[in-house]
Amino acid sequence: MSHSSPSPTIREIRDAIRSGTRTIDQTVQQAFDAAQRLQPELQAFIHLPAAPIVNRAAPHAPLAGVPVGIKDLIDTADMPTAYGSPAYEGRRPDKDAWVVARLREAGATVLGKTVTTEFAWRQPGATTNPWNSDHTPGGSSSGSAAAVAAGIVPLALGTQTFGSVIRPAAYCGVVGVKPSYGTIARTGVLPLSGSLDHLGVFTTNVADAVHALSILAGSDADDPHASHNSRKRKDPGDAAKRPPRIGVLREQIGGPIDKAQQHVLNQLAIRLRADGAEIVGADLPAELLDAARHASILVAVEAALIHGELVDRSPALVSAPITALVEEGRALPATEYAKAKALQVQMAVRFDQWFTEAAGLDALLVAPASGEAPRGLDYTGDAAFCTPWTFLGVPAVTLPVGFGPGGLPLGVQLVGASQHDAALLSLAEWVEGRTGWNIAVASR
Amino acid sequence: MSHSSPSPTIREIRDAIRSGTRTIDQTVQQAFDAAQRLQPELQAFIHLPAAPIVNRAAPHAPLAGVPVGIKDLIDTADMPTAYGSPAYEGRRPDKDAWVVARLREAGATVLGKTVTTEFAWRQPGATTNPWNSDHTPGGSSSGSAAAVAAGIVPLALGTQTFGSVIRPAAYCGVVGVKPSYGTIARTGVLPLSGSLDHLGVFTTNVADAVHALSILAGSDADDPHASHNSRKRKDPGDAAKRPPRIGVLREQIGGPIDKAQQHVLNQLAIRLRADGAEIVGADLPAELLDAARHASILVAVEAALIHGELVDRSPALVSAPITALVEEGRALPATEYAKAKALQVQMAVRFDQWFTEAAGLDALLVAPASGEAPRGLDYTGDAAFCTPWTFLGVPAVTLPVGFGPGGLPLGVQLVGASQHDAALLSLAEWVEGRTGWNIAVASR
Repeated sequence: MSHSSPSPTIREIRDAIRSGTRTIDQTVQQAFDAAQRLQPELQAFIHLPAAPIVNRAAPHAPLAGVPVGIKDLIDTADMPTAYGSPAYEGRRPDKDAWVVARLREAGATVLGKTVTTEFAWRQPGATTNPWNSDHTPGGSSSGSAAAVAAGIVPLALGTQTFGSVIRPAAYCGVVGVKPSYGTIARTGVLPLSGSLDHLGVFTTNVADAVHALSILAGSDADDPHASHNSRKRKDPGDAAKRPPRIGVLREQIGGPIDKAQQHVLNQLAIRLRADGAEIVGADLPAELLDAARHASILVAVEAALIHGELVDRSPALVSAPITALVEEGRALPATEYAKAKALQVQMAVRFDQWFTEAAGLDALLVAPASGEAPRGLDYTGDAAFCTPWTFLGVPAVTLPVGFGPGGLPLGVQLVGASQHDAALLSLAEWVEGRTGWNIAVASR
Repeated sequence: MSHSSPSPTIREIRDAIRSGTRTIDQTVQQAFDAAQRLQPELQAFIHLPAAPIVNRAAPHAPLAGVPVGIKDLIDTADMPTAYGSPAYEGRRPDKDAWVVARLREAGATVLGKTVTTEFAWRQPGATTNPWNSDHTPGGSSSGSAAAVAAGIVPLALGTQTFGSVIRPAAYCGVVGVKPSYGTIARTGVLPLSGSLDHLGVFTTNVADAVHALSILAGSDADDPHASHNSRKRKDPGDAAKRPPRIGVLREQIGGPIDKAQQHVLNQLAIRLRADGAEIVGADLPAELLDAARHASILVAVEAALIHGELVDRSPALVSAPITALVEEGRALPATEYAKAKALQVQMAVRFDQWFTEAAGLDALLVAPASGEAPRGLDYTGDAAFCTPWTFLGVPAVTLPVGFGPGGLPLGVQLVGASQHDAALLSLAEWVEGRTGWNIAVASR
């Protein structure tokens, strides 16, 4: 397997640098060495510089010395950004994406650009699953998930339009967080679907994700959806005082799941109940079952606007899945798109009412995928277990909880109410302490 | 002319009822008598009950005794609501629209249903301009504007998708306010374009509009755009301490305006400057000049979803303008609509930056229409002077300021920054005191 020794966590790096037991350069160099050593089999990076480009400018900042993998959909001024597409090979952005600038201000070092599927859609890159290189790491943020899972970096950035953070995180056995829609400004990130695209993070533990998101959350006028997002909710102060109420779907949304996936969900629910959580059966409002169909309309139309010109100009440089997506979007009538767009807003309100009032939940506990990562590298897996939450714009986090019969990781997904990210992550941290996962990792 | 003696203002009604000099019944009866007397020529109402349905349930509430005209696009449980369409003749809603329920809770009496153009689009109703019955009152909220202008009611509700509050208010010589998008929940109001529809009010003075809006602003889960709107801004506390900064467009958006309209804008600017305002020339960001084109795409597609089925089923009951609108919307590709929808969000952010930061304005002073109400009742006038502000979702208010050569009123329009409604209305009240209009009305 393509594992180095586990990466130190973000907090371990901070403590080591502050106490002087390690330097920024040593920390980054270790990550760089691991990246180079694992690259032939893992292929997590599409671009690694010849030597680390260490950020020494802010040695006391909260991410000083933290090496980060950046999905190659996200602009970096000092490294190429080619969107996983031969059509953009060698493309060199003028400036950092907003989120990259924010990372650097916080002291982080961009270690390299991680593999994305072409334009964050379906055509896979070369990355393999760090637990078994015959299996997909998931996508579209394939390299970011693999780089964190393989112990190269403690933090990587991804994007999710359907399931591109949560699914690869689950397949690779790491923590993945897709915050509420609009949490992190997307300026300088290639859109696939402006109505659905979210920036998210991969880490090895929830506390690191909380730390990273506290730095990365922010708005920018050039991403109007983020800049309009000033409705961050106050979480009720008494949330910690009562047992969490967690809904378990009586019927998984997204389709049937494997026995092993169902088993880890059941085991975790039993454990959480034993530790004081209230576990309740939950039935989603029926109209939410159509969310994925509406999301498909949004992505086809918006991708047609973004990639249509390239498909016309250089069809040989574009994959069949992208060509098909653009054609689908162009063929749709405006009324279909308008319906989907209006339903996205209506369903978000409906879900929020259901979640907070009717069901009175703190989180939904659902599958992040149908099970272990599929065998083969041509297919990054089914996003159907993530798309509804992305469509609704609600926060979602996946945690690794165990292994399946194929020896690959299995995760669970916790879903929260829109803008209640802090409450969801706090609950996720509590759940994480009950998964036993950290013990498993440490002992391998 | 179709004028009764001027209606008492909302505040006069409140004071009279509180002091016992008039009863709720007397006040409503006076309005009802005026409505009946003026109806043959003015045609402000499409439905007046046989006798007033007086709301005596909340005699101490803030709108107790206030008779209100309700645009016939807005549901009322005790009166028919036919949307200005023969296809819906005799339609009787099960329940009040959200905003009507709010009015009744506040003690107001629904006097009758006011004429709307068919579905708030272009096919006019029978209402005439109260200043000259050969002229249009404007549309689509024709009857509401006319009923307030004729002194029947001190308050009426309208809706604006392009210019349907501001334009008829200006043509009829009353105050019209279109608040920020999402300010008043639209549940129970027939949509024309969910992306553009706003509820607004007609009054005889700004203070009454402020009072009414303080009661009517609110959200409802069944109008997701209103329920998501919790980003009401705090107005800077020092706004009152410095002179207002008012932008005058170097080039009117919407097209050329009449000499008389230009004259009243100039005169008012001179007067405001003399009274301490800072008047500055302003140039809108170039891309905003396309706002009306994008708005046309949104309304065509969304109207096609709302009215398409009726057009197919009962083409003889639908006007040519609605049929054409539905056909236009159905023929549009999804990509065109998606572009317009994305641009609406982008332009709103851009305008806000320009308005508050680059230009540093408190308001824009613009024409509400090209000039006086056009002669004839077949055409309700050009909305082009209002559509950009509706598209942007920013608050707009029109004030009557004088008369044109045809003896019909002329107004001005003040436009503010999104969610800064309170600041805009406060400025409008200051401007109102400098227009001399109240003197003109009192002396006719």
